[in-house]
Amino acid sequence: MRRIKEKPKAVVLLSGGMDSCVTAAIADTTHRLALLHVSYGQRTERRERHAFEEIADFYGARERLVVRLDSLAQVGGSALTDAAIAVPESGKALESHAGIPVTYVPFRNAHFLSAAVSWAEVIRAEAIFIGAVAEDSSGYPDCRPEYYRAFQELIRVGTRPETRIEIMTPVIGLKKSEIVSRGAALGAPLRSTWSCYQFEDEACGVCDSCRLRLRAFSEAGLRDPIAYRAAVAS
Amino acid sequence: MRRIKEKPKAVVLLSGGMDSCVTAAIADTTHRLALLHVSYGQRTERRERHAFEEIADFYGARERLVVRLDSLAQVGGSALTDAAIAVPESGKALESHAGIPVTYVPFRNAHFLSAAVSWAEVIRAEAIFIGAVAEDSSGYPDCRPEYYRAFQELIRVGTRPETRIEIMTPVIGLKKSEIVSRGAALGAPLRSTWSCYQFEDEACGVCDSCRLRLRAFSEAGLRDPIAYRAAVAS
Repeated sequence: MRRIKEKPKAVVLLSGGMDSCVTAAIADTTHRLALLHVSYGQRTERRERHAFEEIADFYGARERLVVRLDSLAQVGGSALTDAAIAVPESGKALESHAGIPVTYVPFRNAHFLSAAVSWAEVIRAEAIFIGAVAEDSSGYPDCRPEYYRAFQELIRVGTRPETRIEIMTPVIGLKKSEIVSRGAALGAPLRSTWSCYQFEDEACGVCDSCRLRLRAFSEAGLRDPIAYRAAVAS
Repeated sequence: MRRIKEKPKAVVLLSGGMDSCVTAAIADTTHRLALLHVSYGQRTERRERHAFEEIADFYGARERLVVRLDSLAQVGGSALTDAAIAVPESGKALESHAGIPVTYVPFRNAHFLSAAVSWAEVIRAEAIFIGAVAEDSSGYPDCRPEYYRAFQELIRVGTRPETRIEIMTPVIGLKKSEIVSRGAALGAPLRSTWSCYQFEDEACGVCDSCRLRLRAFSEAGLRDPIAYRAAVAS
């Protein structure tokens, strides 16, 4: 009798947004999914958590971990975690990559990856998937390939000698529209994802994140299945 | 009229232990202190927090931040955060550097440093001091110089282009006894520090951390000013 080799395990950082959902869809083709969600006091935390659970259900993921991270909100300094800083509706992120936008959360992805590495080391996952996107991104420094190379080295020197964890960034070089197409091709549950920085019931359609998403679906020639406040969804 | 140049600001990770207290004492000679404490569900959390406040009061630090980090306890896998794993009393850490001890918290210092970098970037601190000790340590992979070099690179690529934050590990090459001597020479409030992994009222004197501390004071020719359970403090 032949024994079918079990797929290796991977921790997937799943915010509930489109990029991480498609990343999970890609990881699902080669790995067993252990899904990690971080609530860090961002404006649309409750809605993103809901998206996480729906996507996790879709993939039948048994291993799930939701961690609360208060330090980013305590530190502040970003429109996403600090109510005193307004979320931009200028569409600035679409036009220019100069400067770091106010939605940048200082050193955010290091917190997320640290949680992923700690969990991966305990549950013996061999990879960490993260849906960082360099192109078409809003200019966040921690979404670029060199950042993940540096983190890979940190894992190598900072974990048990026998630990082998590879960081996978399968969508980092894709355009947003390509991410939509890839997700559609893989049957990813894009209708469960959430991108809006501002609202939790219907997406605002005007924040930078909504604009990038709407443009991506438009370029991919697909209809975005989520609900937008009527006036702005064109 | 001459204007005295203000000292630059540094974030100091202050657990409340001896190494971080002496690190704060060293940082205090060149920087204004912004003190950061992380509560991560470790056994002696309440006592360490108390030590942090006393040391912060001693240095008159106006900027203080205490962050709660639940993810490490959720992830588990360490005797320090998981009640199901016993804290060793074997003195093993004193005898051998082979293998990683059960008190290793997977990838812990990355969480601490990430919080420090996020805060440093927001309050514009130029340095982060951490009291990691490579020699005489318990064999934790994230206490070695190469780990901090890797993290320095991560900061360089993962923060705003204008951000300059240097990681300082002033006690990393010192023996524990040298840390005691240095602390005493700088007038550091060693009586306020806490090292015991097990208890919060009087130190147990038999866990690896207590043993290392007692040996360090003994080798430095000084009396440890904190209270130990009578029978074991010899």
